[in-house]
Amino acid sequence: MNPIAVSLGDPAGIGPEITAKAWERRVEDGLAPFFAVGDGRSISAVWDGPVTRISDPAEAPDAFAGGLPLIQLEDGGPIIPGKPDAEGARCSLDSLEMAAGLARSGAAGALVTGPVSKSQLYDVGFRHPGQTEFVAERCGIARENAIMLLAGPSLKVVPLTTHMPLKDVSDALSIEMIVAKSLVTAKGITRNFGIKSPRLAFAGFNPHAGENGALGSEEIDFIIPAIEILRERGVDAVGPLAADTMFHPRARASYDVAMCMYHDQALIPLKTLHFDEGVNMTLGLPFVRTSPDHGTAFGIAGTGVAEPGAMVAAIRMAAAAAAHRAACTL
Amino acid sequence: MNPIAVSLGDPAGIGPEITAKAWERRVEDGLAPFFAVGDGRSISAVWDGPVTRISDPAEAPDAFAGGLPLIQLEDGGPIIPGKPDAEGARCSLDSLEMAAGLARSGAAGALVTGPVSKSQLYDVGFRHPGQTEFVAERCGIARENAIMLLAGPSLKVVPLTTHMPLKDVSDALSIEMIVAKSLVTAKGITRNFGIKSPRLAFAGFNPHAGENGALGSEEIDFIIPAIEILRERGVDAVGPLAADTMFHPRARASYDVAMCMYHDQALIPLKTLHFDEGVNMTLGLPFVRTSPDHGTAFGIAGTGVAEPGAMVAAIRMAAAAAAHRAACTL
Repeated sequence: MNPIAVSLGDPAGIGPEITAKAWERRVEDGLAPFFAVGDGRSISAVWDGPVTRISDPAEAPDAFAGGLPLIQLEDGGPIIPGKPDAEGARCSLDSLEMAAGLARSGAAGALVTGPVSKSQLYDVGFRHPGQTEFVAERCGIARENAIMLLAGPSLKVVPLTTHMPLKDVSDALSIEMIVAKSLVTAKGITRNFGIKSPRLAFAGFNPHAGENGALGSEEIDFIIPAIEILRERGVDAVGPLAADTMFHPRARASYDVAMCMYHDQALIPLKTLHFDEGVNMTLGLPFVRTSPDHGTAFGIAGTGVAEPGAMVAAIRMAAAAAAHRAACTL
Repeated sequence: MNPIAVSLGDPAGIGPEITAKAWERRVEDGLAPFFAVGDGRSISAVWDGPVTRISDPAEAPDAFAGGLPLIQLEDGGPIIPGKPDAEGARCSLDSLEMAAGLARSGAAGALVTGPVSKSQLYDVGFRHPGQTEFVAERCGIARENAIMLLAGPSLKVVPLTTHMPLKDVSDALSIEMIVAKSLVTAKGITRNFGIKSPRLAFAGFNPHAGENGALGSEEIDFIIPAIEILRERGVDAVGPLAADTMFHPRARASYDVAMCMYHDQALIPLKTLHFDEGVNMTLGLPFVRTSPDHGTAFGIAGTGVAEPGAMVAAIRMAAAAAAHRAACTL
């Protein structure tokens, strides 16, 4: 497998630090070779370890043992950890663009994206909801076919809707949307995790999954019909399940991914269980993309306390997924 | 403290079995004396241990060591575990009525209610949403002032709305409602848990707590103003917090109770973490009332596999709360 590209994210956030700390754990955690894409000054500002500049991903595997391989991209301004600015936002976008391009071309075996600041990006003209949609567009994939999967050691969740007011979610649900995203999810789980017939468990939208319509109709209107169609299409789909009783250990053991109707329904259990090790993976792309499931944490950037656990998990999951895809005959 | 009254719930559910099994664990778990209220046949159908009939709660402490004390109420029909019927539903209601009355009078030191079947109760004319509202009415407490608290070893949550369609929740929120229920909650936490100035953490309604209005307005319209009023009233209130990042271990350590806007927002984290030991406690009543946070489980009733953990926890929490109230000068 070719080395993994890691975009450093916002230079003033914790992305550079956790990438460097992940490199320190390369032997202990058995990490596949990776290289950073971004401004090396954002690393040297927070880390004393060795960085090896490279100009081609193909140099990364040999360089990896002796230093963190880096493809240098200039941030036009000063870099002060914890102090984001427009130049840094542009640099984070350039890093993402280059790293995604290397993954798209195959020169990188997978893409791991460090945390960016959406508000900073919006200020410099970024018009996508997040990195996921940006990468999807660069791949020619319709935004709705790029699926966000959040994964921890004991739980995988897909939020079928994400960043919208909760009271708008009901109107955003449809049989077609649920079916389409679930098909991408099922295929993505197979390709990225090597699970031949993944079990999808659907959460109800309402309390107690609506109690046969007594507590809301979204289950009857959208979720149940979607599950029936998915079963006809050969997907192992169960539900709708009462959302509150589907995330305890015995329940989690009964499915491979929980299909959730809204952001917090998916993210509450995931972050309650796996706050420090959650990985965001995009399904439906032509390559593997993961990301540590946390933000830039400007408040602690530069203080040396950033925990690299989620970045390590993102790199490990990306490597494992790329290996599964290489072995997959789909 | 006077002995605790335990209503057995539906005779065909697991209530009788878990009550009997809790009695078996009285020494090991240091349980305060309690007595059952219901039809003894529902116990003997699933349990071989000793039952001691009593006619007055005052007999329970002496009887407790040698057998499960029982105040007998007749179920008019046959009792078959796993096969609920109308006679059983009426018996469960009679048990609740008597046990609640004994707690109301002070003859019982607290009330623990076993699981009932709402659908069976509705069929015999029950018109309350659940046991909580029934008990509140019997105490002359307005329904909206009886607050459901769900508690596990590491988390307490209050759902400010409960059994309604999720898309109706936004309309059900108001500053006044949040303030009123939070005041009852704060006082109840003080009285029942002995926490002098409880810390209330409010969940946002929308993803990321609305991101300053970008992802919904309920935080701005209702939650933030309510928190401000509560602070003026001397309540230690924080939030609104992003709901997905407020339930991991470090976050939970920062508050005493999470105030949640809807059923699943409260119940997902509680049941994910504490599925087998969750306790439902009613705040705002003139006495302590708890309940194991699970249903009748008709599917396993009579098979002997019902776990008494939540019932044991409910009895322990009721005893501790009654002791705190006795010591409380409020």
